[in-house]
Amino acid sequence: MTSEIKQLQQQLTKFAAERDWDQFHSPKNLAMALSGEVGELTEIFQWLTPEQSEHLPTAKKAHLEEEIADVLMYLLRLADKCDVDIMTACQKKLSKNEKKYPIDKCFGNAKKI
Amino acid sequence: MTSEIKQLQQQLTKFAAERDWDQFHSPKNLAMALSGEVGELTEIFQWLTPEQSEHLPTAKKAHLEEEIADVLMYLLRLADKCDVDIMTACQKKLSKNEKKYPIDKCFGNAKKI
Amino acid sequence: MTSEIKQLQQQLTKFAAERDWDQFHSPKNLAMALSGEVGELTEIFQWLTPEQSEHLPTAKKAHLEEEIADVLMYLLRLADKCDVDIMTACQKKLSKNEKKYPIDKCFGNAKKI
Amino acid sequence: MTSEIKQLQQQLTKFAAERDWDQFHSPKNLAMALSGEVGELTEIFQWLTPEQSEHLPTAKKAHLEEEIADVLMYLLRLADKCDVDIMTACQKKLSKNEKKYPIDKCFGNAKKI
Repeated sequence: MTSEIKQLQQQLTKFAAERDWDQFHSPKNLAMALSGEVGELTEIFQWLTPEQSEHLPTAKKAHLEEEIADVLMYLLRLADKCDVDIMTACQKKLSKNEKKYPIDKCFGNAKKI
Repeated sequence: MTSEIKQLQQQLTKFAAERDWDQFHSPKNLAMALSGEVGELTEIFQWLTPEQSEHLPTAKKAHLEEEIADVLMYLLRLADKCDVDIMTACQKKLSKNEKKYPIDKCFGNAKKI
Repeated sequence: MTSEIKQLQQQLTKFAAERDWDQFHSPKNLAMALSGEVGELTEIFQWLTPEQSEHLPTAKKAHLEEEIADVLMYLLRLADKCDVDIMTACQKKLSKNEKKYPIDKCFGNAKKI
Repeated sequence: MTSEIKQLQQQLTKFAAERDWDQFHSPKNLAMALSGEVGELTEIFQWLTPEQSEHLPTAKKAHLEEEIADVLMYLLRLADKCDVDIMTACQKKLSKNEKKYPIDKCFGNAKKI
Protein backbone atom coordinates (compact mmCIF):
# COMPACT_ATOMS: atom_id res chain seq x y z
CA MET A 1 0.00 0.00 0.00
CA THR A 2 1.34 3.41 -0.96
CA SER A 3 1.19 5.96 1.83
CA GLU A 4 -0.82 9.17 1.47
CA ILE A 5 2.41 11.20 1.51
CA LYS A 6 3.99 9.18 -1.28
CA GLN A 7 0.78 9.34 -3.32
CA LEU A 8 0.80 13.12 -3.08
CA GLN A 9 4.49 13.21 -4.02
CA GLN A 10 3.67 11.14 -7.12
CA GLN A 11 0.92 13.59 -8.07
CA LEU A 12 3.37 16.49 -7.71
CA THR A 13 5.97 14.70 -9.82
CA LYS A 14 3.36 14.16 -12.55
CA PHE A 15 2.19 17.80 -12.32
CA ALA A 16 5.73 19.09 -12.86
CA ALA A 17 6.59 16.55 -15.57
CA GLU A 18 3.48 17.38 -17.63
CA ARG A 19 4.50 21.05 -17.66
CA ASP A 20 8.23 20.39 -18.15
CA TRP A 21 8.87 22.24 -14.90
CA ASP A 22 11.32 19.72 -13.57
CA GLN A 23 14.11 21.86 -15.00
CA PHE A 24 13.21 24.60 -12.46
CA HIS A 25 12.84 22.28 -9.47
CA SER A 26 16.38 22.02 -8.19
CA PRO A 27 16.50 21.63 -4.39
CA LYS A 28 17.92 25.16 -4.15
CA ASN A 29 14.99 26.63 -6.09
CA LEU A 30 12.45 24.56 -4.18
CA ALA A 31 13.90 25.80 -0.89
CA MET A 32 13.38 29.37 -2.11
CA ALA A 33 9.81 28.63 -3.25
CA LEU A 34 9.12 27.05 0.14
CA SER A 35 10.39 30.12 1.92
CA GLY A 36 8.31 32.41 -0.30
CA GLU A 37 5.15 30.45 0.58
CA VAL A 38 5.97 30.55 4.29
CA GLY A 39 6.27 34.32 3.93
CA GLU A 40 2.71 34.42 2.59
CA LEU A 41 1.51 32.24 5.46
CA THR A 42 3.25 34.53 7.97
CA GLU A 43 1.47 37.58 6.55
CA ILE A 44 -1.90 36.10 7.55
CA PHE A 45 -0.92 36.28 11.21
CA GLN A 46 1.36 39.32 11.38
CA TRP A 47 -1.04 41.90 12.79
CA LEU A 48 -3.20 39.50 14.82
CA THR A 49 -2.85 39.03 18.55
CA PRO A 50 -2.05 35.45 19.62
CA GLU A 51 -5.67 35.21 20.79
CA GLN A 52 -7.06 36.41 17.45
CA SER A 53 -4.86 33.88 15.69
CA GLU A 54 -6.80 31.12 17.48
CA HIS A 55 -10.13 32.24 16.01
CA LEU A 56 -9.63 33.10 12.35
CA PRO A 57 -12.56 34.54 10.42
CA THR A 58 -13.77 32.36 7.54
CA ALA A 59 -11.96 34.21 4.74
CA LYS A 60 -8.62 34.13 6.57
CA LYS A 61 -9.13 30.45 7.40
CA ALA A 62 -9.67 29.67 3.69
CA HIS A 63 -6.56 31.65 2.81
CA LEU A 64 -4.57 29.80 5.48
CA GLU A 65 -5.67 26.44 4.07
CA GLU A 66 -4.23 27.39 0.69
CA GLU A 67 -0.95 28.59 2.14
CA ILE A 68 -0.55 25.51 4.32
CA ALA A 69 -1.14 23.40 1.21
CA ASP A 70 1.45 25.36 -0.78
CA VAL A 71 4.02 24.95 1.98
CA LEU A 72 3.42 21.21 2.29
CA MET A 73 3.54 20.66 -1.45
CA TYR A 74 6.90 22.40 -1.89
CA LEU A 75 8.27 20.65 1.19
CA LEU A 76 7.24 17.22 -0.12
CA ARG A 77 8.67 18.00 -3.53
CA LEU A 78 11.97 19.07 -1.93
CA ALA A 79 12.10 15.93 0.21
CA ASP A 80 11.38 13.79 -2.84
CA LYS A 81 14.09 15.47 -4.94
CA CYS A 82 16.63 15.00 -2.14
CA ASP A 83 15.65 11.38 -1.41
CA VAL A 84 14.55 12.23 2.12
CA ASP A 85 11.93 9.87 3.56
CA ILE A 86 10.01 12.57 5.37
CA MET A 87 8.00 10.42 7.80
CA THR A 88 11.11 8.52 8.91
CA ALA A 89 12.94 11.85 9.31
CA CYS A 90 10.14 13.09 11.60
CA GLN A 91 10.24 10.00 13.80
CA LYS A 92 14.02 10.34 14.17
CA LYS A 93 13.77 14.05 15.02
CA LEU A 94 10.94 13.45 17.47
CA SER A 95 13.02 10.83 19.34
CA LYS A 96 15.93 13.26 19.43
CA ASN A 97 13.68 16.02 20.77
CA GLU A 98 12.39 13.72 23.50
CA LYS A 99 15.95 13.34 24.78
CA LYS A 100 16.84 17.00 24.27
CA TYR A 101 13.79 18.24 26.16
CA PRO A 102 13.22 15.87 29.11
CA ILE A 103 9.75 16.37 30.60
CA ASP A 104 10.93 17.04 34.16
CA LYS A 105 13.31 19.80 33.11
CA CYS A 106 11.20 21.43 30.41
CA PHE A 107 7.74 21.44 31.95
CA GLY A 108 6.18 24.83 31.20
CA ASN A 109 9.52 26.27 30.20
CA ALA A 110 9.49 28.29 27.01
CA LYS A 111 13.23 28.91 27.10
CA LYS A 112 13.90 25.28 26.38
CA ILE A 113 11.62 24.99 23.38
CA MET B 1 -7.50 3.39 10.21
CA THR B 2 -5.78 6.57 11.31
CA SER B 3 -3.65 8.17 8.60
CA GLU B 4 0.10 8.58 9.03
CA ILE B 5 -0.33 12.37 9.10
CA LYS B 6 -2.95 12.24 11.85
CA GLN B 7 -0.84 9.78 13.84
CA LEU B 8 2.10 12.17 13.74
CA GLN B 9 -0.16 15.07 14.74
CA GLN B 10 -1.30 13.04 17.75
CA GLN B 11 2.31 12.38 18.74
CA LEU B 12 3.03 16.12 18.51
CA THR B 13 -0.02 16.96 20.61
CA LYS B 14 1.16 14.50 23.27
CA PHE B 15 4.73 15.87 23.14
CA ALA B 16 3.51 19.43 23.80
CA ALA B 17 0.95 18.42 26.43
CA GLU B 18 3.51 16.45 28.45
CA ARG B 19 5.74 19.55 28.62
CA ASP B 20 2.88 22.02 29.16
CA TRP B 21 3.97 23.78 25.97
CA ASP B 22 0.47 24.16 24.59
CA GLN B 23 0.38 27.63 26.13
CA PHE B 24 3.11 28.72 23.67
CA HIS B 25 1.59 27.08 20.61
CA SER B 26 -0.81 29.72 19.35
CA PRO B 27 -1.14 29.68 15.55
CA LYS B 28 0.73 33.00 15.47
CA ASN B 29 3.67 31.59 17.41
CA LEU B 30 3.69 28.37 15.39
CA ALA B 31 3.80 30.39 12.15
CA MET B 32 6.90 32.17 13.49
CA ALA B 33 8.51 28.89 14.54
CA LEU B 34 7.77 27.48 11.09
CA SER B 35 9.40 30.44 9.43
CA GLY B 36 12.46 30.18 11.69
CA GLU B 37 12.93 26.53 10.70
CA VAL B 38 12.55 27.34 7.01
CA GLY B 39 15.30 29.92 7.50
CA GLU B 40 17.59 27.16 8.79
CA LEU B 41 16.68 24.96 5.83
CA THR B 42 17.41 27.83 3.41
CA GLU B 43 20.88 28.31 4.90
CA ILE B 44 21.84 24.79 3.81
CA PHE B 45 21.43 25.78 0.16
CA GLN B 46 22.36 29.47 0.13
CA TRP B 47 25.92 29.25 -1.24
CA LEU B 48 25.43 26.15 -3.37
CA THR B 49 24.90 26.24 -7.10
CA PRO B 50 21.62 24.66 -8.27
CA GLU B 51 23.73 21.72 -9.50
CA GLN B 52 25.48 21.30 -6.13
CA SER B 53 22.08 21.36 -4.43
CA GLU B 54 21.18 18.19 -6.35
CA HIS B 55 24.10 16.24 -4.89
CA LEU B 56 24.43 17.05 -1.21
CA PRO B 57 27.37 15.60 0.71
CA THR B 58 26.38 13.20 3.50
CA ALA B 59 26.63 15.67 6.39
CA LYS B 60 24.51 18.28 4.62
CA LYS B 61 21.97 15.62 3.66
CA ALA B 62 21.65 14.58 7.33
CA HIS B 63 21.25 18.23 8.33
CA LEU B 64 18.59 18.69 5.63
CA GLU B 65 16.63 15.68 6.92
CA GLU B 66 16.42 17.29 10.34
CA GLU B 67 15.32 20.67 9.00
CA ILE B 68 12.70 19.10 6.72
CA ALA B 69 11.37 17.21 9.75
CA ASP B 70 11.25 20.40 11.85
CA VAL B 71 9.37 22.25 9.11
CA LEU B 72 6.83 19.44 8.66
CA MET B 73 6.26 19.07 12.39
CA TYR B 74 5.52 22.77 12.94
CA LEU B 75 3.35 22.83 9.83
CA LEU B 76 1.30 19.84 11.01
CA ARG B 77 0.96 21.34 14.47
CA LEU B 78 -0.25 24.63 12.96
CA ALA B 79 -2.75 22.83 10.71
CA ASP B 80 -4.01 20.84 13.69
CA LYS B 81 -4.43 23.93 15.88
CA CYS B 82 -6.36 25.70 13.09
CA ASP B 83 -8.54 22.69 12.23
CA VAL B 84 -7.14 22.48 8.72
CA ASP B 85 -7.31 19.01 7.16
CA ILE B 86 -3.97 19.27 5.41
CA MET B 87 -4.36 16.43 2.88
CA THR B 88 -7.76 17.71 1.76
CA ALA B 89 -6.31 21.22 1.49
CA CYS B 90 -3.55 19.90 -0.79
CA GLN B 91 -5.98 18.11 -3.10
CA LYS B 92 -8.07 21.28 -3.40
CA LYS B 93 -5.03 23.43 -4.13
CA LEU B 94 -3.68 20.93 -6.64
CA SER B 95 -6.99 20.97 -8.56
CA LYS B 96 -6.93 24.75 -8.52
CA ASN B 97 -3.33 24.78 -9.81
CA GLU B 98 -4.29 22.41 -12.63
CA LYS B 99 -6.78 25.00 -13.87
CA LYS B 100 -4.50 27.96 -13.22
CA TYR B 101 -1.58 26.43 -15.10
CA PRO B 102 -3.02 24.60 -18.14
CA ILE B 103 -0.45 22.27 -19.67
CA ASP B 104 -0.61 23.70 -23.19
CA LYS B 105 0.04 27.27 -22.02
CA CYS B 106 2.58 26.55 -19.30
CA PHE B 107 4.78 23.91 -20.88
CA GLY B 108 8.37 24.79 -20.05
CA ASN B 109 7.39 28.27 -18.95
CA ALA B 110 8.94 29.40 -15.70
CA LYS B 111 7.07 32.68 -15.68
CA LYS B 112 3.82 30.91 -15.07
CA ILE B 113 4.99 28.82 -12.13
CA MET C 1 30.09 63.58 1.05
CA THR C 2 29.48 59.84 0.93
CA SER C 3 26.37 58.73 2.78
CA GLU C 4 26.59 56.37 5.75
CA ILE C 5 24.74 53.71 3.73
CA LYS C 6 27.15 53.94 0.80
CA GLN C 7 30.15 53.87 3.15
CA LEU C 8 28.88 50.64 4.71
CA GLN C 9 28.26 49.17 1.25
CA GLN C 10 31.87 49.97 0.34
CA GLN C 11 33.10 48.22 3.49
CA LEU C 12 31.03 45.15 2.57
CA THR C 13 32.39 45.16 -0.98
CA LYS C 14 35.93 45.26 0.40
CA PHE C 15 35.19 42.50 2.93
CA ALA C 16 33.94 40.18 0.19
CA ALA C 17 36.69 41.09 -2.29
CA GLU C 18 39.47 40.40 0.25
CA ARG C 19 38.07 36.90 0.80
CA ASP C 20 37.27 36.24 -2.88
CA TRP C 21 33.64 35.74 -1.85
CA ASP C 22 32.21 37.78 -4.67
CA GLN C 23 31.81 34.57 -6.64
CA PHE C 24 29.18 33.44 -4.10
CA HIS C 25 27.32 36.74 -3.92
CA SER C 26 24.89 36.52 -6.81
CA PRO C 27 21.62 38.34 -6.08
CA LYS C 28 19.89 34.95 -5.86
CA ASN C 29 22.32 33.70 -3.21
CA LEU C 30 22.20 36.98 -1.29
CA ALA C 31 18.39 36.80 -1.22
CA MET C 32 18.68 33.34 0.34
CA ALA C 33 21.26 34.53 2.88
CA LEU C 34 18.98 37.44 3.75
CA SER C 35 16.08 35.10 4.32
CA GLY C 36 18.20 32.80 6.48
CA GLU C 37 19.18 35.73 8.71
CA VAL C 38 15.58 36.89 9.00
CA GLY C 39 14.74 33.36 10.14
CA GLU C 40 17.26 33.74 12.97
CA LEU C 41 15.80 37.11 13.90
CA THR C 42 12.29 35.61 13.93
CA GLU C 43 13.38 32.88 16.34
CA ILE C 44 14.21 35.51 18.97
CA PHE C 45 10.55 36.53 19.15
CA GLN C 46 8.69 33.31 18.39
CA TRP C 47 7.67 32.26 21.90
CA LEU C 48 7.37 35.75 23.38
CA THR C 49 4.07 37.55 23.85
CA PRO C 50 3.82 40.89 22.00
CA GLU C 51 4.27 42.57 25.40
CA GLN C 52 7.40 40.57 26.23
CA SER C 53 8.80 41.50 22.82
CA GLU C 54 8.73 45.16 23.91
CA HIS C 55 11.01 44.52 26.88
CA LEU C 56 13.79 42.17 25.85
CA PRO C 57 16.22 40.94 28.50
CA THR C 58 19.82 42.06 27.92
CA ALA C 59 21.08 38.84 26.35
CA LYS C 60 18.22 38.70 23.86
CA LYS C 61 18.69 42.39 23.05
CA ALA C 62 22.38 41.76 22.26
CA HIS C 63 21.40 38.80 20.08
CA LEU C 64 18.81 40.93 18.29
CA GLU C 65 21.40 43.62 17.56
CA GLU C 66 23.55 41.05 15.78
CA GLU C 67 20.68 39.66 13.74
CA ILE C 68 19.47 43.12 12.74
CA ALA C 69 23.02 43.91 11.60
CA ASP C 70 23.23 40.68 9.59
CA VAL C 71 19.91 41.40 7.89
CA LEU C 72 20.90 44.98 7.02
CA MET C 73 24.31 43.95 5.70
CA TYR C 74 22.92 41.31 3.34
CA LEU C 75 20.16 43.69 2.24
CA LEU C 76 22.66 46.46 1.44
CA ARG C 77 24.88 44.01 -0.40
CA LEU C 78 21.91 42.81 -2.46
CA ALA C 79 20.84 46.38 -3.26
CA ASP C 80 24.40 47.22 -4.29
CA LYS C 81 24.75 44.17 -6.54
CA CYS C 82 21.43 44.99 -8.25
CA ASP C 83 22.16 48.72 -8.63
CA VAL C 84 19.25 49.68 -6.40
CA ASP C 85 19.65 53.03 -4.65
CA ILE C 86 18.04 51.92 -1.41
CA MET C 87 17.28 55.34 0.13
CA THR C 88 15.63 56.57 -3.07
CA ALA C 89 13.65 53.31 -3.26
CA CYS C 90 12.39 53.91 0.31
CA GLN C 91 11.25 57.45 -0.43
CA LYS C 92 9.38 56.26 -3.53
CA LYS C 93 7.71 53.42 -1.62
CA LEU C 94 6.80 55.69 1.27
CA SER C 95 5.08 58.16 -1.11
CA LYS C 96 3.21 55.25 -2.68
CA ASN C 97 2.12 54.00 0.75
CA GLU C 98 0.85 57.45 1.67
CA LYS C 99 -1.53 57.29 -1.28
CA LYS C 100 -2.44 53.64 -0.73
CA TYR C 101 -3.26 54.16 2.93
CA PRO C 102 -4.98 57.56 3.28
CA ILE C 103 -5.11 58.66 6.90
CA ASP C 104 -8.88 59.17 7.07
CA LYS C 105 -9.64 55.67 5.81
CA CYS C 106 -6.90 53.77 7.59
CA PHE C 107 -6.90 55.33 11.04
CA GLY C 108 -6.57 52.49 13.56
CA ASN C 109 -7.39 49.92 10.92
CA ALA C 110 -5.12 46.89 10.94
CA LYS C 111 -6.79 45.33 7.90
CA LYS C 112 -5.41 48.06 5.69
CA ILE C 113 -1.81 47.79 6.82
CA MET D 1 23.08 66.72 11.65
CA THR D 2 20.56 63.90 11.65
CA SER D 3 21.69 60.86 9.70
CA GLU D 4 19.75 59.63 6.67
CA ILE D 5 18.80 56.45 8.57
CA LYS D 6 17.44 58.39 11.54
CA GLN D 7 15.55 60.74 9.23
CA LEU D 8 13.85 57.79 7.56
CA GLN D 9 13.04 56.28 10.96
CA GLN D 10 11.39 59.57 11.95
CA GLN D 11 9.30 59.52 8.77
CA LEU D 12 8.19 55.98 9.56
CA THR D 13 7.29 56.91 13.13
CA LYS D 14 5.18 59.78 11.81
CA PHE D 15 3.54 57.55 9.18
CA ALA D 16 2.44 55.04 11.83
CA ALA D 17 1.40 57.69 14.37
CA GLU D 18 -0.84 59.49 11.86
CA ARG D 19 -2.69 56.23 11.19
CA ASP D 20 -2.74 55.06 14.83
CA TRP D 21 -0.85 51.96 13.73
CA ASP D 22 1.61 52.05 16.59
CA GLN D 23 -0.67 49.65 18.47
CA PHE D 24 0.13 46.96 15.84
CA HIS D 25 3.88 47.60 15.74
CA SER D 26 5.16 45.47 18.58
CA PRO D 27 8.64 44.09 17.85
CA LYS D 28 7.09 40.63 17.51
CA ASN D 29 4.64 41.82 14.85
CA LEU D 30 7.31 43.83 13.04
CA ALA D 31 9.55 40.76 12.91
CA MET D 32 6.69 38.87 11.24
CA ALA D 33 6.03 41.71 8.78
CA LEU D 34 9.75 41.78 7.96
CA SER D 35 9.76 38.07 7.28
CA GLY D 36 6.66 38.37 5.08
CA GLU D 37 8.37 41.02 2.95
CA VAL D 38 11.53 38.95 2.65
CA GLY D 39 9.32 36.12 1.39
CA GLU D 40 8.08 38.41 -1.40
CA LEU D 41 11.64 39.41 -2.24
CA THR D 42 12.68 35.75 -2.38
CA GLU D 43 9.90 34.95 -4.85
CA ILE D 44 11.47 37.33 -7.38
CA PHE D 45 14.55 35.13 -7.58
CA GLN D 46 13.21 31.64 -6.95
CA TRP D 47 13.09 30.29 -10.51
CA LEU D 48 16.02 32.31 -11.87
CA THR D 49 19.49 30.89 -12.35
CA PRO D 50 22.22 32.72 -10.39
CA GLU D 51 23.30 34.22 -13.74
CA GLN D 52 19.79 35.45 -14.57
CA SER D 53 19.58 37.00 -11.11
CA GLU D 54 22.49 39.27 -12.09
CA HIS D 55 20.61 40.73 -15.05
CA LEU D 56 17.02 41.39 -14.04
CA PRO D 57 14.59 42.61 -16.71
CA THR D 58 13.18 46.10 -16.06
CA ALA D 59 9.86 45.00 -14.54
CA LYS D 60 11.52 42.62 -12.10
CA LYS D 61 14.08 45.27 -11.17
CA ALA D 62 11.26 47.73 -10.35
CA HIS D 63 9.54 45.03 -8.28
CA LEU D 64 12.80 44.29 -6.47
CA GLU D 65 13.26 47.97 -5.60
CA GLU D 66 9.88 47.98 -3.89
CA GLU D 67 10.56 44.81 -1.93
CA ILE D 68 14.01 46.01 -0.83
CA ALA D 69 12.38 49.23 0.38
CA ASP D 70 9.70 47.31 2.30
CA VAL D 71 12.32 45.13 3.97
CA LEU D 72 14.46 48.10 4.97
CA MET D 73 11.52 50.09 6.30
CA TYR D 74 10.29 47.27 8.55
CA LEU D 75 13.85 46.57 9.68
CA LEU D 76 14.44 50.23 10.61
CA ARG D 77 11.11 50.37 12.40
CA LEU D 78 11.99 47.23 14.38
CA ALA D 79 15.43 48.61 15.28
CA ASP D 80 13.85 51.88 16.38
CA LYS D 81 11.23 50.17 18.56
CA CYS D 82 13.92 48.04 20.22
CA ASP D 83 16.37 50.94 20.73
CA VAL D 84 18.97 49.34 18.49
CA ASP D 85 21.36 51.80 16.85
CA ILE D 86 21.55 49.96 13.56
CA MET D 87 24.72 51.55 12.11
CA THR D 88 26.67 50.93 15.33
CA ALA D 89 25.35 47.35 15.38
CA CYS D 90 26.66 46.84 11.81
CA GLN D 91 30.14 48.16 12.64
CA LYS D 92 30.33 45.84 15.67
CA LYS D 93 29.19 42.83 13.65
CA LEU D 94 31.58 43.64 10.82
CA SER D 95 34.54 43.76 13.26
CA LYS D 96 33.42 40.44 14.70
CA ASN D 97 33.17 38.92 11.22
CA GLU D 98 36.68 40.12 10.39
CA LYS D 99 38.01 38.07 13.30
CA LYS D 100 35.73 35.10 12.63
CA TYR D 101 36.70 34.89 8.97
CA PRO D 102 40.44 35.68 8.71
CA ILE D 103 41.43 36.40 5.11
CA ASP D 104 44.19 33.80 4.90
CA LYS D 105 41.92 30.96 6.05
CA CYS D 106 38.75 31.97 4.24
CA PHE D 107 40.01 33.05 0.85
CA GLY D 108 37.64 31.63 -1.75
CA ASN D 109 36.12 29.27 0.77
CA ALA D 110 32.34 29.12 0.70
CA LYS D 111 32.13 26.77 3.68
CA LYS D 112 33.37 29.48 5.96
CA ILE D 113 30.92 32.15 4.91
